[in-house]
Amino acid sequence: MNRFGSRFRIALWGESHGPQIGLVLDGVPAGLPLSEEDFAADLLRRRAGAPGTTPRREADVPQLAAGVCRGRTTGAPLTIVFANENTRPQDYADLPDRPSHADRAARERFGGFNDPRGGGHFSGRLTLALVAAGVVAKKMLPEGVTFATRIAEIGGCTDPARFGEVLRAAEAAGDSAGGLVECCAEGVPMGWGEPFFDSVESLVAHLLFAVPGVKGVEFGSGFAAARMRGSEHNDPILDAEGRTATNHAGGIVGGLTNGNPLVVRAAFKPTASIAREQRTFDRTTGSVGPLAIRGRHDICIALRGAVAVEAAVAIALADLMRR
Amino acid sequence: MNRFGSRFRIALWGESHGPQIGLVLDGVPAGLPLSEEDFAADLLRRRAGAPGTTPRREADVPQLAAGVCRGRTTGAPLTIVFANENTRPQDYADLPDRPSHADRAARERFGGFNDPRGGGHFSGRLTLALVAAGVVAKKMLPEGVTFATRIAEIGGCTDPARFGEVLRAAEAAGDSAGGLVECCAEGVPMGWGEPFFDSVESLVAHLLFAVPGVKGVEFGSGFAAARMRGSEHNDPILDAEGRTATNHAGGIVGGLTNGNPLVVRAAFKPTASIAREQRTFDRTTGSVGPLAIRGRHDICIALRGAVAVEAAVAIALADLMRR
Amino acid sequence: MNRFGSRFRIALWGESHGPQIGLVLDGVPAGLPLSEEDFAADLLRRRAGAPGTTPRREADVPQLAAGVCRGRTTGAPLTIVFANENTRPQDYADLPDRPSHADRAARERFGGFNDPRGGGHFSGRLTLALVAAGVVAKKMLPEGVTFATRIAEIGGCTDPARFGEVLRAAEAAGDSAGGLVECCAEGVPMGWGEPFFDSVESLVAHLLFAVPGVKGVEFGSGFAAARMRGSEHNDPILDAEGRTATNHAGGIVGGLTNGNPLVVRAAFKPTASIAREQRTFDRTTGSVGPLAIRGRHDICIALRGAVAVEAAVAIALADLMRR
Amino acid sequence: MNRFGSRFRIALWGESHGPQIGLVLDGVPAGLPLSEEDFAADLLRRRAGAPGTTPRREADVPQLAAGVCRGRTTGAPLTIVFANENTRPQDYADLPDRPSHADRAARERFGGFNDPRGGGHFSGRLTLALVAAGVVAKKMLPEGVTFATRIAEIGGCTDPARFGEVLRAAEAAGDSAGGLVECCAEGVPMGWGEPFFDSVESLVAHLLFAVPGVKGVEFGSGFAAARMRGSEHNDPILDAEGRTATNHAGGIVGGLTNGNPLVVRAAFKPTASIAREQRTFDRTTGSVGPLAIRGRHDICIALRGAVAVEAAVAIALADLMRR
Repeated sequence: MNRFGSRFRIALWGESHGPQIGLVLDGVPAGLPLSEEDFAADLLRRRAGAPGTTPRREADVPQLAAGVCRGRTTGAPLTIVFANENTRPQDYADLPDRPSHADRAARERFGGFNDPRGGGHFSGRLTLALVAAGVVAKKMLPEGVTFATRIAEIGGCTDPARFGEVLRAAEAAGDSAGGLVECCAEGVPMGWGEPFFDSVESLVAHLLFAVPGVKGVEFGSGFAAARMRGSEHNDPILDAEGRTATNHAGGIVGGLTNGNPLVVRAAFKPTASIAREQRTFDRTTGSVGPLAIRGRHDICIALRGAVAVEAAVAIALADLMRR
Repeated sequence: MNRFGSRFRIALWGESHGPQIGLVLDGVPAGLPLSEEDFAADLLRRRAGAPGTTPRREADVPQLAAGVCRGRTTGAPLTIVFANENTRPQDYADLPDRPSHADRAARERFGGFNDPRGGGHFSGRLTLALVAAGVVAKKMLPEGVTFATRIAEIGGCTDPARFGEVLRAAEAAGDSAGGLVECCAEGVPMGWGEPFFDSVESLVAHLLFAVPGVKGVEFGSGFAAARMRGSEHNDPILDAEGRTATNHAGGIVGGLTNGNPLVVRAAFKPTASIAREQRTFDRTTGSVGPLAIRGRHDICIALRGAVAVEAAVAIALADLMRR
Repeated sequence: MNRFGSRFRIALWGESHGPQIGLVLDGVPAGLPLSEEDFAADLLRRRAGAPGTTPRREADVPQLAAGVCRGRTTGAPLTIVFANENTRPQDYADLPDRPSHADRAARERFGGFNDPRGGGHFSGRLTLALVAAGVVAKKMLPEGVTFATRIAEIGGCTDPARFGEVLRAAEAAGDSAGGLVECCAEGVPMGWGEPFFDSVESLVAHLLFAVPGVKGVEFGSGFAAARMRGSEHNDPILDAEGRTATNHAGGIVGGLTNGNPLVVRAAFKPTASIAREQRTFDRTTGSVGPLAIRGRHDICIALRGAVAVEAAVAIALADLMRR
Repeated sequence: MNRFGSRFRIALWGESHGPQIGLVLDGVPAGLPLSEEDFAADLLRRRAGAPGTTPRREADVPQLAAGVCRGRTTGAPLTIVFANENTRPQDYADLPDRPSHADRAARERFGGFNDPRGGGHFSGRLTLALVAAGVVAKKMLPEGVTFATRIAEIGGCTDPARFGEVLRAAEAAGDSAGGLVECCAEGVPMGWGEPFFDSVESLVAHLLFAVPGVKGVEFGSGFAAARMRGSEHNDPILDAEGRTATNHAGGIVGGLTNGNPLVVRAAFKPTASIAREQRTFDRTTGSVGPLAIRGRHDICIALRGAVAVEAAVAIALADLMRR
C-alpha cells in the first residue's frame, strides 16, 4: 500500500489536482535540526521550468505540520505537507484513457471511483513526497555519505552537451524522450542490508520502481554482468578493510553493502503524454480514433526524476542503517 | 528481514550446511489440494546435474510439516521443510573471504558470528524455499494464469542451440558465465498492484533482487525504453477491454497490471566461485595472493535461477491478487 | 510506531499544541460515500463541555485532505486533518514532570527533544484521530453491525443517575475520578479473527491500550471468568447456526468471533492532572515540593474516552473483516 | 496472522496432532550463546503432569534447526522445532463442536478445512512456541531485567496453600477452574515503548490475548484504578531518576516504561473441556443433547499458562528494547 519501510517508515498521500501532497515519517530520531529551508535544494532539482520540463509550476513550499519543535525533530511522527495550488479543475465525463497511462487499469481497479484528474494518485506529482522523505533520510545518514546523481542518457544520447538538442528535437516533433539516471552513493559503511528479502538491491529497487516511469533498474555492471565471465566480473579484495580493485558489484555483495560506492541506474520510459496525435480507443465513440493530449507535460521525466532516484536510495539506506 | 509479503506472506530460514532449509507461508487459503508431489516439477527445474550446474545433488524432498490436513491446506500456517543431506563439514578457521561473495561484509555485519560454511544463510541454496513458495503461489493464482520462463542469454549468447558450447568453453577455462532470464506471465487480470509503493514492478523486483546473483531487472522494453520516444513506446489501446497493439509496458502501467502479458527480465552475474586462480587478499598471510576455489559450483547460476525468477513473479502476484 | 493495521491501516500524527492532528488511512474501499458531516456525531461525543470534561474547546472540523473525489472515497490514501486552534504557547523551560504523566519517561526516551507542551504527542488529544478512523471503520463494516457504548462506572459508582454527583464531588475536591466503559458490538459475523497472534481480543486490546488512560481490558466475563468453573462459564451451543444460551465469552472463542455480541470493557484511570496540590519532585529546586496543576482538564477521561473505545473496536473489526 | 513483532519478530506454526510445533525468530542479535538446555527450565514450567494439569505428556525437546552455529546465534533466522509425539489420530467425521471452543467458528472461518483434531492450530499446545520465543527474548534483555511470575488466584481462591484443594474439588466434580496470573518484570530501563499504537501495554496485551484462555489483562492498579481518584492513583515522583513513592501505574506511563517494576495480570477462563456432561447442539442428531468430553485436559490452564504470560512480557520487551 502507500507505506514503505521497517525502521524509517514513510506513508504518503495526495492527488495531482487534490488539495495537498503529504507524507508522514516514523523512525526519525529526535533532535535532528530541521527547517523548511532544508528542503529547498532538492525541491529545486525537482521543480519544473528547465528545458524539457513541464510549464506547470508549483511553489512547493513544505509545511512541517507535526514532529518538529523548536527547530528540531521530536521523535514523534514527522509530517510534511505541500499545498497544491496550480490545479485545473476539469470536466470529468469525457476524460479518455490515455495510452501507457494508468487510466484504464485504475478504473478497473477502483471501480471507476479513482480521481481521474491528471492521473490522480498515480501522478508523477507524488514524487514530491518521495523527494521530501529523501531530504530527511539524507540528514539521518552518517556524515560521510555523499550522493552524486546524474542524467546518464537522454533518448540514447550519452553526451550531456547534446542533451538540449535531443530534447528540442523531441519537443519539435510533439514527442517525448526516455532517459537514464545514475546515482552513486559514496561512504556507505560495510555490512548494511538484511538477508534474505531485504537486500540493499531489493529495497532500493522496490522504491525506484514506485517512481512513475521507471522500467529498469541495475546495480554495478547490471545487465552487462550477464554477458561477462566470473574472472572478469569478480572484484578482487585488496586489503583487510575489504577494499577491492574494481567495483563491478556496484557496492553490494550478497545483498550487503561492501564499503564501495553504491552504483545504481534507473531507466525512465519516455513521457506517455505527448502532444503529437496518437490513435487509440475512444470510449465516447466506441472505436479507435485520434487523440492529442493537451496540457503541460515534461518532454523527459528522467530530468526531474533524477532527484527522486537519489531520494529512493537515501530512504532505503536510512531504513537499513545500523549503529 | 527474512520475511516478505502482505497478504501472502513468506518467512524462510536455513544455511547451506545447516540441518534444513524451510519456509512458512501465511495467507494460503484453506481447502487448496496440496501434496509433496506438487513440488516435484519445479524442484526438478532447480535441481543440479544438468550441464553447467553444480555436481552437488540433494534429494530435496519437501516435508509438509504444518498447515495441511487430509491433503488440503487448512488455512493455518503452511510449513515446508527440506533436510540438508549432502553437507560437507569444513574447518572454519581458514575460510578465506572470496571475491564477490558476501563473506567479508557478512563478517562485518554479524561480528564474525555468521555461519561461514558454503556462504551459510547467504547461499543460493536458500532459493529452494523461494521455489517452494512459488509452487504454492502458482496454485493460488486464477486458473488462466500461465508462466513461460526461459534462459534468454548465456554469456551474451542469445542462441539456445549454442548455450552448451558457451558453457563448456567457460568450464574448460575454469571460469563461469552470466546469464539473462525472461519470465512471461499470461492471463493476469487487469488492475492488480498497489499504489504508491507496492507497484507490481516494485514487488517483483524486490523479490528478484533477493535471489543471489541478480544485478538487473527490467519490465517490458526496460532499458531500451530509455532510448525510445513516446510515440514509439506508447501502447495504443484497441478496444473497450483495454487490449493494446503493442506491449512495450510489459503488462504494467502506473504500477498496475493492464491485462497484457507481464514480461520481466533478470540479469544474473557470473558465478563468483571459479576454479581458475584469482588474486585476492589472504587473511592468513595479510597480503594479496592466489586463491583457487575448490568445491562444487554452477558454471552459470541463471540456469537453476530461472525457476526462482518464475517463483518470484508468482509470489508477488499471489500477494497482490484480489477477489 | 504510529501505525496500526494490516488491511485497514492507520497512521496518525500531531501534538497537543502543534499545528494539527491528522491521520491517513489505507485500505478504505473505493466508492464509499464520505463527507465532513459523517464525522459530526462521533466528534460531538468526544467534544469537551459536558460536566466532567475540560473547558478547552476546539471546533474540530475535519478536512478531507486526500482520497475523496466527488463525495466518495477513491481507494487512494484517505487523509483527514484537524487544525489545532485553541493552543496556548507556554514557556518551555519550567515545565515540571507531572506525576503519572509521560513527561519524565518521554524526556528519557527522546533525549529531551520531545514536545513538552500539554504532553505533546502523548496528549489525549490524539484520540481525535482514532475517533475519526473509527467513523470510517464503521462505514466499512457490514450494515447489520451496530455499536452500543456506555459509561458503566464512574469512581466505582454504577448508577448513571448518580454520575453527576460523583463528578461534582471530585471536582469540588480539586480531584479526578476513574471510570469504566463498556462497548457492545452486535451483528458481527462469525469467524472473524486471525490465529495465532491476531485474535480479535489481541487487536482490540492493542488499540484500547493505545488510548491514554486505559489500564485494563476484558472481554465477556473477563476477570470474573478467572473465578468461575467451566460448567458455569461454558456457553452451550443451541443450534446449527452456533447460537449459544449465554455469552460469557463476549462473542469471541479461540480468538474468532462466534456470532454473539462482542462485549469489551476498558478501565480508565482517573485523570492524572488534578488541581489539588500534590507533592512531587521539583527539577528546579532538586527536591520534593508541592505541585498544583493549572490548566483545563477533564475530571474523568472515561467520559470522552467512550467514543474512542468504540472507535478502537470498529477499527479492529474493519481490519479483520473478510468478504 | 501468525506473526508478531517489529524488531524481534516471531512466526509460528503447528497443530495439536500435526507433525511438529515450530517457530522462526528474526532480529535475534548474532553472537548470543544458545543451546537446547537453555529452554529446559521454562519448558519444565509449561510441562504437564503436576496436579491440575493434563496427563498428556510430551518430551518437548527443542531442535535448533537454523540460525545457530558453534553454540551461538548467527544473526540469521533462528528456527526452533518440537516434534509432536504423543498424538492420537481420531476419526474426523464425528467430532462435535465443543462449547466455548473455536470449533464452530473455525469451521465457518476456514470452510471446514481446518484441522479439527484437538483444536488443531487453535490448541493451547501452540504456547510451546511462545514459551520458546520467551526464552530467547529473556536472553536478549539487559542483564538486570528479572521476572517473577505467580499464580495469584485459582477459582477465586487467593491462598496458594489452598490451591491444591480447589483443584481437587473441581476435578472431583468433573469440572475445571479459572485462574489469575501475575507477572512482574523488574529492572526494565525507563523510556521503552512506542507512541501511539505500540505502547508497552498494547504490545504486552496483544501477545497475552493470543494465549488461549486469556479473557482479561490489566496493568498496575488496572480495573481498580477505575474506582480511584487521581490523588489516590497518582504516583508521586521522588527524585531526579524518576523513582516514585507508589506504583499504581504498574511501571508504565503514557505507554512508556518509567523504571518501576512492570506489573501485569492476566485472567484465564476455566478450561472449556470438562469431563462433566454438558448439554449442547449435536450436529449428528440436529438437536441439543448431552456431551461428555473425554481425553486428557488441564483442570486449570492458568497453571501451565503462567510461563506463557512471562514469555509474552519478555517478547514484547525484546521487541521494544532500545540501545
